[in-house]
Amino acid sequence: MRRNKAQTGPLPSWNEGATKQSILQFVERVTTESDRGFVPPLDRIAVFDNDGTLWSEKPAYFQLLFALDRVRALAVDHPEWQEQQPFKAVLEDDIDGLLAGGMKAIIDILVATHGGNTTDEFEQIVSDWIASARHPRTGRLYTELVFQPMLELLDFLRARGFRTYIVSGGGIEFMRAWVEGVYGIPPEQVIGSSIETQFEMRDIGPVLVRIPKVDFVDDNEGKPVGIHKFIGRRPILAFGNSDGDREMLQWTAAGDGPRLMGLVHHTDAEREWAYDRESPIGRLDKALDEARARGWTVADMKRDWQMIYPWESE
Amino acid sequence: MRRNKAQTGPLPSWNEGATKQSILQFVERVTTESDRGFVPPLDRIAVFDNDGTLWSEKPAYFQLLFALDRVRALAVDHPEWQEQQPFKAVLEDDIDGLLAGGMKAIIDILVATHGGNTTDEFEQIVSDWIASARHPRTGRLYTELVFQPMLELLDFLRARGFRTYIVSGGGIEFMRAWVEGVYGIPPEQVIGSSIETQFEMRDIGPVLVRIPKVDFVDDNEGKPVGIHKFIGRRPILAFGNSDGDREMLQWTAAGDGPRLMGLVHHTDAEREWAYDRESPIGRLDKALDEARARGWTVADMKRDWQMIYPWESE
Repeated sequence: MRRNKAQTGPLPSWNEGATKQSILQFVERVTTESDRGFVPPLDRIAVFDNDGTLWSEKPAYFQLLFALDRVRALAVDHPEWQEQQPFKAVLEDDIDGLLAGGMKAIIDILVATHGGNTTDEFEQIVSDWIASARHPRTGRLYTELVFQPMLELLDFLRARGFRTYIVSGGGIEFMRAWVEGVYGIPPEQVIGSSIETQFEMRDIGPVLVRIPKVDFVDDNEGKPVGIHKFIGRRPILAFGNSDGDREMLQWTAAGDGPRLMGLVHHTDAEREWAYDRESPIGRLDKALDEARARGWTVADMKRDWQMIYPWESE
Repeated sequence: MRRNKAQTGPLPSWNEGATKQSILQFVERVTTESDRGFVPPLDRIAVFDNDGTLWSEKPAYFQLLFALDRVRALAVDHPEWQEQQPFKAVLEDDIDGLLAGGMKAIIDILVATHGGNTTDEFEQIVSDWIASARHPRTGRLYTELVFQPMLELLDFLRARGFRTYIVSGGGIEFMRAWVEGVYGIPPEQVIGSSIETQFEMRDIGPVLVRIPKVDFVDDNEGKPVGIHKFIGRRPILAFGNSDGDREMLQWTAAGDGPRLMGLVHHTDAEREWAYDRESPIGRLDKALDEARARGWTVADMKRDWQMIYPWESE
């Protein structure tokens, strides 16, 4: 469609300009042995937020849409939900009623739908959903709502010796069920929010049971905490899209030597969505100011991306 | 010394016999593409306990000896410790008095000595200690008390496409400060117990501060929980030496296809130490029974290891 077939070289879906140049120059620098900014491969750690950075997050975080589908699927075993909020609102497709319950309603739904299974069972539930559920506006599989320019960036970095990690506020086990096939990121390079798990010896052998209790929230200050806990090295590249990524970007920026801090700015209401400072989901306000003040890389979707989704070239 | 210079091939410090054969046959099987038990490289995950499995743990866990040294170093800033247990006992070298305080005394000391610093400061403190402190009985650096046969096993597995992880009850940040140089295991492949950390923006920039509050105990049931959290894949090989490793071994054993579950049995009072069912540190009782009942690999130090420490060949 809008893809320039003549373009060759790395990052073909990124338009020529300062944004693409800042990425190419950074990678060139840290991978050139004679450069003072050279970084050995083991320290080439790149971290990416997921929602809004690697795939879309509208009309709501896709994991929340998964949770709503789970409420509908589990309702037969929970007749009390017909009269109990926030479940009643979900079952009646009353989104305003759901949102009226605020963050507490959301957490009630996440906890009720994400706990209780073994880890193997939960992985199967997510795998089945992600292979069949459809995004409301586009009718596409959710995994088709990934950003082609970011897929190219992940591939390009790995080809230059980087290890690519996801560091997301989303659930670690929700993501691990599908990100390896979609992004080429293996489970051990996925960091996310989690509920507690508990070892149990059952007749079938040992299992890990998912307990409906929050273990770790991998957002805002939690992102550098999670990076340090899981990786134990400071990244040299970090990409996010919202204020929830700000501390991760600050933590990355504070290391020695060359760094790349990037933001995806959702500016394209026609091909994707346009939102920033006022959006309840993916709010980008303080981090955008900081990016501009400190010269971080801002990928303006409308200006910098020749295509958004992989299927645009079909 | 006792090393047979004529021996060639993998695992030269392992005596010929059933133990060595069980390891070689397992690795041959999972790395042979035509074998029904073949495992692709990405799934070749091997996990190792640290204390008593990769290095010695007597007269006490080396990290506890580090903590006692920290009490002595910090005492100038804590005049109250002269009269306050369990610190008073440490400062008076009264080990019986310390042990009389039980696990609570140990935890008080670990919390008082492991919290309060930034992560960068703590890494430097551990690095300085590990480079200079001496093991009481041998007068060696603690990092010289590693087991030569296990170093060879780590190398051998990595040469066959395995990724080697540590899964230890020891502190994750205590280990990360030195294990890469000693075992060739990078920080992102170290799983251990942790205290909480907190992101703070200071004048010098963002830091992570270590909070004196337990975050995760990576022992017993915590080991499979930690493996699932950090790796998200089930190991195909696990090696431990105590009942604290039992659930990790059970979790590994419960997967499909070929598996290797191993125990280091401390049977050599002359070259190292001899202890199992009655030892307060590194107790091996139920896991030894289970290993024998299920045919797991038991490395009997006296019988199976031609040398214990790397410097025996000097």
